Amino acid sequence: MTLDRRAKALAVLEQLDPDAPARVAANLDALSDDFLEIVLGFSFADVVSRPGIDLRTREMLTVAALMAMGTAPEQLEFHILAALHTGVTREEIIEILLQIAVYAGVPACMNGISAAKKAFAAQAV
Amino acid sequence: MTLDRRAKALAVLEQLDPDAPARVAANLDALSDDFLEIVLGFSFADVVSRPGIDLRTREMLTVAALMAMGTAPEQLEFHILAALHTGVTREEIIEILLQIAVYAGVPACMNGISAAKKAFAAQAV
Amino acid sequence: MTLDRRAKALAVLEQLDPDAPARVAANLDALSDDFLEIVLGFSFADVVSRPGIDLRTREMLTVAALMAMGTAPEQLEFHILAALHTGVTREEIIEILLQIAVYAGVPACMNGISAAKKAFAAQAV
Amino acid sequence: MTLDRRAKALAVLEQLDPDAPARVAANLDALSDDFLEIVLGFSFADVVSRPGIDLRTREMLTVAALMAMGTAPEQLEFHILAALHTGVTREEIIEILLQIAVYAGVPACMNGISAAKKAFAAQAV
Amino acid sequence: MTLDRRAKALAVLEQLDPDAPARVAANLDALSDDFLEIVLGFSFADVVSRPGIDLRTREMLTVAALMAMGTAPEQLEFHILAALHTGVTREEIIEILLQIAVYAGVPACMNGISAAKKAFAAQAV
Amino acid sequence: MTLDRRAKALAVLEQLDPDAPARVAANLDALSDDFLEIVLGFSFADVVSRPGIDLRTREMLTVAALMAMGTAPEQLEFHILAALHTGVTREEIIEILLQIAVYAGVPACMNGISAAKKAFAAQAV
Repeated sequence: MTLDRRAKALAVLEQLDPDAPARVAANLDALSDDFLEIVLGFSFADVVSRPGIDLRTREMLTVAALMAMGTAPEQLEFHILAALHTGVTREEIIEILLQIAVYAGVPACMNGISAAKKAFAAQAV
Repeated sequence: MTLDRRAKALAVLEQLDPDAPARVAANLDALSDDFLEIVLGFSFADVVSRPGIDLRTREMLTVAALMAMGTAPEQLEFHILAALHTGVTREEIIEILLQIAVYAGVPACMNGISAAKKAFAAQAV
Repeated sequence: MTLDRRAKALAVLEQLDPDAPARVAANLDALSDDFLEIVLGFSFADVVSRPGIDLRTREMLTVAALMAMGTAPEQLEFHILAALHTGVTREEIIEILLQIAVYAGVPACMNGISAAKKAFAAQAV
Repeated sequence: MTLDRRAKALAVLEQLDPDAPARVAANLDALSDDFLEIVLGFSFADVVSRPGIDLRTREMLTVAALMAMGTAPEQLEFHILAALHTGVTREEIIEILLQIAVYAGVPACMNGISAAKKAFAAQAV
Repeated sequence: MTLDRRAKALAVLEQLDPDAPARVAANLDALSDDFLEIVLGFSFADVVSRPGIDLRTREMLTVAALMAMGTAPEQLEFHILAALHTGVTREEIIEILLQIAVYAGVPACMNGISAAKKAFAAQAV
Repeated sequence: MTLDRRAKALAVLEQLDPDAPARVAANLDALSDDFLEIVLGFSFADVVSRPGIDLRTREMLTVAALMAMGTAPEQLEFHILAALHTGVTREEIIEILLQIAVYAGVPACMNGISAAKKAFAAQAV
């Protein structure tokens, strides 16, 4: 059962970024394999994989939340790229940036622009 | 032109809540009518009315951002109700609450549950 | 298994406040019983019940985190009371308030004082 | 010396609101008189009373910071009123509200409008 | 009209940093020229250029808000330098840092010290 | 007396990291020696040195608060290392990371993991 939970979390992560499972697992397991089991199990196996909202829209929501919070720039860049992987367009990312300027302020938008530029460049490779 | 901007902002606000324009205008104009012209003009006339993302999805993004920030409980309640008005379902609000538990923590989700209950009750009237 | 997870979460919650399980379950289940299963399952069954740090110290950490964040005053009051239930003294709560004044600022400390006063009064009943 | 520090803090507080010293001292001393000595001593005796920026401008800065943070609505209301007491005009408070809409987002501005309305009403009494 | 709004925004930006308009326009236009028109139009043409508070004091308020928020270190550095350009002294920046230690905590002050050191070094060039 | 306050603050800082006093004093004094006297005096001489909670537990609280806030990654790394210096184990840091995933969200936990890895590596040297 524990293996299933870990495997299920990594399978969702793979949908967000095909290269992420190996990298993220290595990063987390180096500290404690409880992170993948408990934290990513909660995130991806329990929540993000639920059918009530499609993955593409979930990534738009996550991008909006992370832009608004402003405390996780690397994860914002990861989720903008994941959003692109799940079918969100660059034009939609730009609309989210404008929406966040309204609700979280211009500096949050500017930080988001920096993250978006990195994600767009990573996608272009 | 200024009247157009004010009128356009209030027209978008009316789509979010048919009762809001009169109430919000009275609230803001009591302090300075620049708020409606400049701040709601920026919010609604310049950004939220843009066609790049439909209004229903924009409200989902706003709900996610406000839940994650945790600093505007009344506006969160307003935008959950506005989301319902634009076609978001209660089931989708529940999914956003779970998504926010992952990305902003369980207390942010619990605050969101309180706001959602109030919005659901207001909708039922 | 699902029942076990729910039951385990409620058993930890009962250690924090004997009256909480019935109240919290009713509050969450009214919206969706997934919250108790998924969100409190993660919080209490997966994390807070772990033996690596005792429950008393965990509550001190939670109180410090919620005071610093400043976005969940009701949950802060709940966890100050829970901290008292698990053996934290009022003197220690006062020390946490001073520590938070340093690391999150005087307004965070003042908000914490309001929550502490309510929790102390609730304990006295 | 300790008495001097306490007295100096209360003297600055009195400049912000003539009624505050008795109320604040009673509120804090009920929990521990270390708060007034250490926390308000730091705030008012060590920092706010410094001559490098006049008290009127300091209150404008404090209002901007508290509006941007969004986690201390009661203290924001107190400092808007204190700003008015030190000579800041209502027109300047409105300008700060607009500036905060830019740098912290429209919801922060809206929360600030609520606090400003309460402070303006309290001043009018 | 659109050109006027863009030009007006860039003219205010030039007062904050003579080198900024070309750099900022290139940075934003690479993604979408709507950012300059809508977001900087709102920021600078609609708000920061208003006469109700002079530009020097506005920059002090922006520095205080950004230090308190703690989520935009690059923009904090930019606005500390802009504050110096508009006549704010280094001594006043130090006073704002102390004021922010009180209202947003010592880590916010320490982050602000890092930004101030970079801005002071950039000014010295 | 002023010298005593400065000396006392640096003595507490030395308990957190034997190399810190010289480095921190040089960093702060370069801007103004008021920071060490006033800000670190408040932090360490007035608060952290109080006997009501032992230094080891205080560092756990500070780590929890900084992880939850998410705005001071360098200070978080410093305090994780300081926690290890005062006797907190790596296993306890991992428990705090899990606790913070619950109360501040998974991105706050992930940022904390990055800081913990750097602190663990610095300790190993």
